[in-house]
Amino acid sequence: MKYRIEHDTLGEVKVPADKYWGAQTERSRNNFKIGPSASMPKEVIEGFAYLKKAAAYANCDLGVLSAEKRDAIAQVCDEILAGDLDDQFPLVIWQTGSGTQTNMNVNEVIANRAQVLAGFQIGEGEQKIKTNDDANKSQSSNDTFPTAMHIAAYKAVVEITIPGIEKLRDTLDAKSKELKNIVKIGRTHLMDATPLTLGQELSGYAAQLDYGLKALKSTLPHLSEIALGGTAVGTGLNAPLDYDVKVANYIALFTGHPFITAPNKFEALASHDAMVEAHGALKQLAVSLNKIANDIRLLASGPRSGIGEILIPENEPGSSIMPGKVNPTQCEALTMVCAQVLGNDIAISIGGMQGHLELNVFKPMIAANFLQSARLIGEACISFDEHCAQGIQPNQKRIKELLDNSLMLVTALNTKIGYYKAAEIAQNAHKNGTTLKEEAVRLGYVSPEDFEVWVKPEDMV
Amino acid sequence: MKYRIEHDTLGEVKVPADKYWGAQTERSRNNFKIGPSASMPKEVIEGFAYLKKAAAYANCDLGVLSAEKRDAIAQVCDEILAGDLDDQFPLVIWQTGSGTQTNMNVNEVIANRAQVLAGFQIGEGEQKIKTNDDANKSQSSNDTFPTAMHIAAYKAVVEITIPGIEKLRDTLDAKSKELKNIVKIGRTHLMDATPLTLGQELSGYAAQLDYGLKALKSTLPHLSEIALGGTAVGTGLNAPLDYDVKVANYIALFTGHPFITAPNKFEALASHDAMVEAHGALKQLAVSLNKIANDIRLLASGPRSGIGEILIPENEPGSSIMPGKVNPTQCEALTMVCAQVLGNDIAISIGGMQGHLELNVFKPMIAANFLQSARLIGEACISFDEHCAQGIQPNQKRIKELLDNSLMLVTALNTKIGYYKAAEIAQNAHKNGTTLKEEAVRLGYVSPEDFEVWVKPEDMV
Amino acid sequence: MKYRIEHDTLGEVKVPADKYWGAQTERSRNNFKIGPSASMPKEVIEGFAYLKKAAAYANCDLGVLSAEKRDAIAQVCDEILAGDLDDQFPLVIWQTGSGTQTNMNVNEVIANRAQVLAGFQIGEGEQKIKTNDDANKSQSSNDTFPTAMHIAAYKAVVEITIPGIEKLRDTLDAKSKELKNIVKIGRTHLMDATPLTLGQELSGYAAQLDYGLKALKSTLPHLSEIALGGTAVGTGLNAPLDYDVKVANYIALFTGHPFITAPNKFEALASHDAMVEAHGALKQLAVSLNKIANDIRLLASGPRSGIGEILIPENEPGSSIMPGKVNPTQCEALTMVCAQVLGNDIAISIGGMQGHLELNVFKPMIAANFLQSARLIGEACISFDEHCAQGIQPNQKRIKELLDNSLMLVTALNTKIGYYKAAEIAQNAHKNGTTLKEEAVRLGYVSPEDFEVWVKPEDMV
Amino acid sequence: MKYRIEHDTLGEVKVPADKYWGAQTERSRNNFKIGPSASMPKEVIEGFAYLKKAAAYANCDLGVLSAEKRDAIAQVCDEILAGDLDDQFPLVIWQTGSGTQTNMNVNEVIANRAQVLAGFQIGEGEQKIKTNDDANKSQSSNDTFPTAMHIAAYKAVVEITIPGIEKLRDTLDAKSKELKNIVKIGRTHLMDATPLTLGQELSGYAAQLDYGLKALKSTLPHLSEIALGGTAVGTGLNAPLDYDVKVANYIALFTGHPFITAPNKFEALASHDAMVEAHGALKQLAVSLNKIANDIRLLASGPRSGIGEILIPENEPGSSIMPGKVNPTQCEALTMVCAQVLGNDIAISIGGMQGHLELNVFKPMIAANFLQSARLIGEACISFDEHCAQGIQPNQKRIKELLDNSLMLVTALNTKIGYYKAAEIAQNAHKNGTTLKEEAVRLGYVSPEDFEVWVKPEDMV
Repeated sequence: MKYRIEHDTLGEVKVPADKYWGAQTERSRNNFKIGPSASMPKEVIEGFAYLKKAAAYANCDLGVLSAEKRDAIAQVCDEILAGDLDDQFPLVIWQTGSGTQTNMNVNEVIANRAQVLAGFQIGEGEQKIKTNDDANKSQSSNDTFPTAMHIAAYKAVVEITIPGIEKLRDTLDAKSKELKNIVKIGRTHLMDATPLTLGQELSGYAAQLDYGLKALKSTLPHLSEIALGGTAVGTGLNAPLDYDVKVANYIALFTGHPFITAPNKFEALASHDAMVEAHGALKQLAVSLNKIANDIRLLASGPRSGIGEILIPENEPGSSIMPGKVNPTQCEALTMVCAQVLGNDIAISIGGMQGHLELNVFKPMIAANFLQSARLIGEACISFDEHCAQGIQPNQKRIKELLDNSLMLVTALNTKIGYYKAAEIAQNAHKNGTTLKEEAVRLGYVSPEDFEVWVKPEDMV
Repeated sequence: MKYRIEHDTLGEVKVPADKYWGAQTERSRNNFKIGPSASMPKEVIEGFAYLKKAAAYANCDLGVLSAEKRDAIAQVCDEILAGDLDDQFPLVIWQTGSGTQTNMNVNEVIANRAQVLAGFQIGEGEQKIKTNDDANKSQSSNDTFPTAMHIAAYKAVVEITIPGIEKLRDTLDAKSKELKNIVKIGRTHLMDATPLTLGQELSGYAAQLDYGLKALKSTLPHLSEIALGGTAVGTGLNAPLDYDVKVANYIALFTGHPFITAPNKFEALASHDAMVEAHGALKQLAVSLNKIANDIRLLASGPRSGIGEILIPENEPGSSIMPGKVNPTQCEALTMVCAQVLGNDIAISIGGMQGHLELNVFKPMIAANFLQSARLIGEACISFDEHCAQGIQPNQKRIKELLDNSLMLVTALNTKIGYYKAAEIAQNAHKNGTTLKEEAVRLGYVSPEDFEVWVKPEDMV
Repeated sequence: MKYRIEHDTLGEVKVPADKYWGAQTERSRNNFKIGPSASMPKEVIEGFAYLKKAAAYANCDLGVLSAEKRDAIAQVCDEILAGDLDDQFPLVIWQTGSGTQTNMNVNEVIANRAQVLAGFQIGEGEQKIKTNDDANKSQSSNDTFPTAMHIAAYKAVVEITIPGIEKLRDTLDAKSKELKNIVKIGRTHLMDATPLTLGQELSGYAAQLDYGLKALKSTLPHLSEIALGGTAVGTGLNAPLDYDVKVANYIALFTGHPFITAPNKFEALASHDAMVEAHGALKQLAVSLNKIANDIRLLASGPRSGIGEILIPENEPGSSIMPGKVNPTQCEALTMVCAQVLGNDIAISIGGMQGHLELNVFKPMIAANFLQSARLIGEACISFDEHCAQGIQPNQKRIKELLDNSLMLVTALNTKIGYYKAAEIAQNAHKNGTTLKEEAVRLGYVSPEDFEVWVKPEDMV
Repeated sequence: MKYRIEHDTLGEVKVPADKYWGAQTERSRNNFKIGPSASMPKEVIEGFAYLKKAAAYANCDLGVLSAEKRDAIAQVCDEILAGDLDDQFPLVIWQTGSGTQTNMNVNEVIANRAQVLAGFQIGEGEQKIKTNDDANKSQSSNDTFPTAMHIAAYKAVVEITIPGIEKLRDTLDAKSKELKNIVKIGRTHLMDATPLTLGQELSGYAAQLDYGLKALKSTLPHLSEIALGGTAVGTGLNAPLDYDVKVANYIALFTGHPFITAPNKFEALASHDAMVEAHGALKQLAVSLNKIANDIRLLASGPRSGIGEILIPENEPGSSIMPGKVNPTQCEALTMVCAQVLGNDIAISIGGMQGHLELNVFKPMIAANFLQSARLIGEACISFDEHCAQGIQPNQKRIKELLDNSLMLVTALNTKIGYYKAAEIAQNAHKNGTTLKEEAVRLGYVSPEDFEVWVKPEDMV
């Protein structure tokens, strides 16, 4: 491979000749061979592209950057956003906890790519855009990285997570209405209980997702606040007056999302409570989705030796050894995602709780875990919706068979003959393998006619 | 010990003669010898007292319970709330996951205590108040226990947690204003950085708590929704029409908190997402508080070999072997609480994600963990506030010494001479053990006069 | 209440006149009103009693404490171990993270109680046993508290946890042998699969516990190492030569457990990896027990609308509203315990990872969580064993019905006619609601005679 | 793109014409668009390659597979192991929880690649190797996937994790010996304490890693047990006698690691306690490493306003805005890894605790998290070792300055003049900003000569 020599404040570094990145990126690349290369989420890089462009505009408006430099910076940022420079960001999550070298990676790519766009070779001629003095003007890693995190996280939640959940919620809601008259046995403690309708059962799932969506959306305002303008420690040193508000406006403009400047920049650099808060809502959704997916596989279990009250789509052959087997694979993928999100929540919380003084240095790890969760939940909901939830069908024969057989219909007699006599009927039927009606009549507690009138599953829901 | 014989639907049970509880409580007491006895939180029992009284009122209003029975039930509930019957609830957290026997414990105590208040011995005469048919009328364990959980959790958050946090937030906010002009060195990555004021540093902590309070308060609406009226599986079987709204109104009246009936009772029995959601906010606060407490002990470290920029109260002799030692003990108590809350969050989330079909059966565990977190955070904030935060004082001599010595003041030169020359100055000063000014002048980059004008810590904040 | 005046190095403190504790205990009691009072686990206090007595003996042997003082200290320690002084330890978990005031609480009780045993009033006459110079001789909080933690943790694991698990393991193992010939349908993905015997199914649970026990026991050597002798920072300052080995021998002698001195005292004070390690094994057991309890409630679900292949004891009426209902309550208690243990593991891990330099200051929190887990697992296993596992009975009628009906017996044909034809048979039977044999013959793939010979559930296990 | 038509038991599927995978892989690829494609760890695919080859050999030895088929299968497996077919495994982690389609992916690639190696086009001619009947002979997804997990996990631990940790341990141990005479101030509660040597401090870290390595190694026996031979539910249906032992021997032979057949196959399919157990040890190591990395950045903090007792390598420019700043970036990467491992531990534990009956269906998620942790820890230790630990140097000037200044040296006087007088000396010196000696003499407790003899830091370690 061919190399060129780059410099930074620590000295010379050999860099692959055909890459736009410079000395600091290369140092980090060599110093942190931990996990797969280029693991820094590309959503974070995109967040940087948005903010570098916005900073260039704000700096220009405030008279500290020329329009020419602004446009040169913006042009490279647009290329990054278009995905044209994806192979120029080789760094890993497991680098400095401030993400400083990822910020410099973006600065270096901007500077060197701008040089090329201006008609030079990389490193040839006087640097048109300087990494620290231009691309990073009025900025620090300490306020850019959290800003990129918030942009990436906000976008992922709004563009992937929420639409995915809403799609599943809508399906469950529609199914709940469609199946609102299918009366079936209820189960508490996994044991037979009084009846409800299949629609009612599904309505609980839709309600869970509604609460989760509401909780998630209520975390967005905190997430929409960005650190940019705080520079090194939150004071805004070296940034012009009003820069923070202006740059946030540009970010809002470029992303189409309502980002605003964080009212307290010290909090915004030193803690990542906004990420902790929003991921807490993702975790709540994982808790809900796990319950839903688990219930659906219980209800669909069988086909002959389980509960079998619903049918779900048969998507793949279920076994490499058992012919004809079909499994609730979407439930499994979704519950695995839920377990992952709970794990990610701990990683993020531990990262969030451990910052020291003016800077939290668990930023890349927090960002990576957050983005994984946001994406997994959104995509798993789409997958679950399309390949499972939409295809849920009642197994009416089985539902009726179990319902008619149930002992817990006896509960309807409580208000007629009291709890204790009702219990005696149910216990006898259980012991003798008989029906409630047989025992109710045999014990002399209820006439056959009254039983028919009083014990109607369809009136118990 | 003397015993009497009690009955339930499974048969006879020997119960201590002097206790109000009955057969089912005794069965559970004998069947679950796990952990300390009577570990079911008394806040849950109080929640039950509120709801049993409310149910009696609602049942009476709706014509299914006599006024006499209503008053008899209410009288015992008031005694429970007054703490007069604290020794009548011997059950543990680690019982059935629905808390059924705790519901029955309350029912049994109501029935037997009412009998005594009516002038009889326990078990003597016809039972005035029947456990299942009166005390439990229009109820099931499945809707009462989650209702008691919400009452207990809501009250703990509103009466203990939030006031505790607000007290600490107010102190940090006041300190932040009081110390807003104390310029000090900043630290990022635990390394010297550009300056900020001590007030700015503290303002970040106050902001964290503000966000946390906002997040916590936004979980209260979900927590204010109660399951009561759903009875066994959420359908409301055996409860009169409008009972759910009415009983919620009474609970709101009796507790003074804005409880309302849950719009979807299936969700309210089968999941505990409201608890998961609210505890998620407690966890966020734990993350914030850990950062705050940890920073404060870093800033107070020393007295001679640490950072030592602030002084905190000396509350206890710090060592049984090292004479004269004083430690940041409030920080330690608070960070231990934070670790506990993170653990509790996992326990609650795992409980929340695992319910089966119509009923989540991790209720007592979820309740106990939630109440512990809510109480610990509130009380630890009060303790930390009174014995630490209020007494924070700047160590002005130390602050000035470190500030004057710092190399990162060089950052002010970036906009004058560029990042690279500024770096050269700082690196030389570091290597040579000299001051920035000496090196700036020696390198010929800045005149002594300009240096004095350009590098002023008080202008950098 | 009457008070007396006590002193420590910070000055005067008013202490309840009738209590043995002194100034430092009282300071901590007043400064840490967090959670229930006296929450410091009594097992930790007992650990202190063992080690204070052992230290007195070792100090005496080494010539730095008189025999008279040794005996006076030992006498009070024996009273503590006998439970006679339980009301003398009012401190909470949420105090200083080193547990210094709990160490001083023990020192103060020893000193004042010894004074009384010597015939004086508390505080009267010259103090026979001095708190810091005698009761704490050759000790620091920093080495005593972790020693007390290890004594308490080791004893709990060996005396409560392991016997409880072994009891359950033995029952599952015995049941597995007893039921080794009951052929039943297997289930993978909750869907019908090839058969196995009920005994085989249970043998997997016994194997899980065997692995867990092995893992737990392999953590005991680390837990048996005690910090005592390290004093303030691990160097052993102010302790006589060979004191560490000698004092460990006395602790081993007094407790009957093989405690030894930690080879590296710096590790033993600054980290609690031994606790993290041993609790990791408790967590593994919680994972196993959750699987076991969850399976058993699935297998016992019904009685008419679930799987219902096994019967478990009916211990309590299962519902306050549904008469005759019986629930798998022991499974619920056990799975709640498992969720708690997972939460505790996070709390302990976070505590363990955060120590600073020479001392971990999350000691009381770590100890409390560990002891709770150790006790809950042990006691929940006993409870589950006695009230559930021992009573497991096969529901042979149901087992046979489900087995005969199953489509997955077709797997036996793979090696005869190939996977694809076997799949065709099963899919047809599923679609048509017929038997495998009918379809096998109808499709012309197998003769009726061959089918009978080839597809025998009892040959498939 | 060009496609060909493939079949499975559910019907026809269009597959990219140039890929070796078949119908089932394609179904899964289309049904699970969750997260990045091809996220199933390649180590798991390698595990499959080992086991498929081993199964072919065992099947051949036992007379159920021809030598020709064995060699054809083995040849493709060798190609997979050589990395030649890396682009043939497009499936994701978030598929069926049994990994069935990944097993089929391997079977399909083996079958189609073997066809091509035999001189045919994909799908041309009669299939030489059948997916289910040959490549999967005597196997099920249910025993192959956990076997692949164990192979992958064991190899990662032994080949990456352990060597990485050992390298760091060796460096810390060597440093500990090299610096064993550098006496420095100790710190407990982050407050000044009695002295120790820098070597002693580092020895605690080495000891932590030694314990962690021991704990990790003691989990290897469980991890070395493989499920293969259990087939569908653990009974070994359709596998020849002795196949399980034989196939384990071949796996041991091919991998060079001591794999053995699991004594209880039911446990091996239905639970993943071996993974939970081994990851528990990885988590313990993360706890230790976090402590170590955190301490090192505390000790290196500064350069002028922190502790600054050690110097660590300057690897990258530390700030995009603060010139000349250098940060403890390796500590940050390592602590981020530790947070991730704690999160992964929860994900794995939740997966482990939730299996149903004969099969745990969180397999791919458990495998992916485990492998990430094993790799991250190993590689982060190497990185930390090379770029930080090896370069640790004492800052002797600073160490001496802090030591001489310390008040906690007073502890040496305890045994001479008692704890209370010693405390008085220290408190006066603290209040007056004087030295211990000045106050000791002024108070008349110690003569100047005695002070010099008694208070020698070098005698206190």
